[in-house]
Amino acid sequence: MLPDEVMEIAQQEMLDWHGSGMSVMEMSHRGREYTSIAKQAEADLRELAGISDDYAVLFLQGGASSQFSMIPMNLLRDKRHADYFNTGIWSAKAIAEASRYTQVNVVADAKPSHYQTIPDKALWQLSDDAAYVHYTPNETIHGIEFAEVPEVGSTPLVADMSSTILSRPIEVDRFGLIYAGAQKNIGPAGLCIVIVHKELLGQTLPGTPAMFDYKLHSDHGSMYNTPATYSWYLAGLVFQWLKRQGGLAEMAKINERKANKLYTAIDASDFYSNPVDPRYRSWMNIPFTLADSTLDERFLTEAAEQGLLSLKGHRDLGGMRASLYNAMPEAGVDKLVWFMSDFERRFG
Amino acid sequence: MLPDEVMEIAQQEMLDWHGSGMSVMEMSHRGREYTSIAKQAEADLRELAGISDDYAVLFLQGGASSQFSMIPMNLLRDKRHADYFNTGIWSAKAIAEASRYTQVNVVADAKPSHYQTIPDKALWQLSDDAAYVHYTPNETIHGIEFAEVPEVGSTPLVADMSSTILSRPIEVDRFGLIYAGAQKNIGPAGLCIVIVHKELLGQTLPGTPAMFDYKLHSDHGSMYNTPATYSWYLAGLVFQWLKRQGGLAEMAKINERKANKLYTAIDASDFYSNPVDPRYRSWMNIPFTLADSTLDERFLTEAAEQGLLSLKGHRDLGGMRASLYNAMPEAGVDKLVWFMSDFERRFG
Repeated sequence: MLPDEVMEIAQQEMLDWHGSGMSVMEMSHRGREYTSIAKQAEADLRELAGISDDYAVLFLQGGASSQFSMIPMNLLRDKRHADYFNTGIWSAKAIAEASRYTQVNVVADAKPSHYQTIPDKALWQLSDDAAYVHYTPNETIHGIEFAEVPEVGSTPLVADMSSTILSRPIEVDRFGLIYAGAQKNIGPAGLCIVIVHKELLGQTLPGTPAMFDYKLHSDHGSMYNTPATYSWYLAGLVFQWLKRQGGLAEMAKINERKANKLYTAIDASDFYSNPVDPRYRSWMNIPFTLADSTLDERFLTEAAEQGLLSLKGHRDLGGMRASLYNAMPEAGVDKLVWFMSDFERRFG
Repeated sequence: MLPDEVMEIAQQEMLDWHGSGMSVMEMSHRGREYTSIAKQAEADLRELAGISDDYAVLFLQGGASSQFSMIPMNLLRDKRHADYFNTGIWSAKAIAEASRYTQVNVVADAKPSHYQTIPDKALWQLSDDAAYVHYTPNETIHGIEFAEVPEVGSTPLVADMSSTILSRPIEVDRFGLIYAGAQKNIGPAGLCIVIVHKELLGQTLPGTPAMFDYKLHSDHGSMYNTPATYSWYLAGLVFQWLKRQGGLAEMAKINERKANKLYTAIDASDFYSNPVDPRYRSWMNIPFTLADSTLDERFLTEAAEQGLLSLKGHRDLGGMRASLYNAMPEAGVDKLVWFMSDFERRFG
């Protein structure tokens, strides 16, 4: 989902970007016009998230799924193992791929709780000499989220922020590497943003494909080969939109308010329920079930008639899931809450 | 460059695709609407290029540069080496990356001719037991092109068709694997199309990232993870446009005519010259020089004033280069020829 305002700008500029006579889609990525678009996007992201020059900001292809291999291939170096939190489907995917390159030590495992809570800090088993610690701040499917950045000492901390990046301020300096597929909370598919401390660049495992070497991309300003130019441009429009909204502190207020409205409605009802430990409930992805699951189809159909789309829960969980990414306006949440209340009144 | 007609359709459909109320950019790649777009694009490409069910058609990210590693990682199997033609900058890049995984045998080397011709077939040194033979049918920088598909016996033939795909009919059955970054002759950046014989799937080198395994992508219809949805959609619009032009046989006539007009103008002049062996001149990329290189800047400036853009030659070669990809209309070539003639009259 992209903000309406961004979609309208993109449409207006589509055939002629800023009087250049060219569409962004037709620009050479090495030309003056596109270079200015790319640099502005990076500058806006650095400003929004407070990213210092100690970090490279990369605009890559291949999604977070490619990062699952790139991270061990670039960060393992001479270490024998890496630490991973397992808090859901996306953590598990990262672990499965990393296990092909190194021994994975699971710091904490949320699976025994059916991914409804995160094990207590006192139970975490961090290694002494892990190459890095990986976690997934927000898990989209079960809707759980770390309430704060885990404290991991001096080991580089790596985060898959695909579904949470730019939803609130980021303490970049606490991370070695942050990555995010852009299609969830930024907007355009086909782009993956990587924010990586420059100290971590330059030492890959033997056999690492050139295109999986962060340093290569950093040295070439993410233009070693043709990047996903249009997605990068759209991301830039989203960054400017976020600045106009007041930046990440303001987005945090809006996103917390949006989530609270929906959780409050769910908790006040006997008809809807969300199973997640309130301490770890996601602001971004809110799964919920109806007391009577035979009403699920009717709920989805009527919601769609109201323009409330994409509410069907993940096939592993059933039920419903509302994704309240940055681009979802607060009025959309209000409408959903109103619809849920009305549906409950009629069928509850 | 994208055909004007395609750009206009894309703009019209941008905020609301076919009455769905959604932009293609906002569709879930697993939803009904996007699935229909993706499947139609594949069907149209199969129809245009005559691709049988023996081949998988993949819509990937990471560009041709990722293919430089994916090819050896997937196709080497238990073989000790692979055969590569070296006919220019792109061949050389493919060779450099493959050399990290296997011994590369150079079948024929165009470098001694400064990439102005392709060594005679009688001089080719094909191996008996190469895993595959790789070549680059069209080299964008020096503007040389194979006149026909090399005869390599039963060894799988692999082609980087980034700058020539869909410019003319393709004898798909003669290839084990065809790949093409879409940003040259199809249009949208961020998409790489791979057409691979299904017999070649399923056996990767140890340490191959999951995302570099063709079989994984084939098994998931190129949707193992979120694909470059918008670029895939745009490619589909281009495939439909190509069908409306009469398909690849018709494109071949148009492209040959476009190239011949420009070569005829160059050869008829003492002021312009193209150094490539006429037997191997590219239809797609035509480098040429002015007799007096001090006029280069003026040529580029005046051309730009006429809307003739992107004529500056590659930095390694200097001079000019006209890229006559599918989306360049014949009228554009006529205008270029007229401008060149006028420029010569005034400064030659």
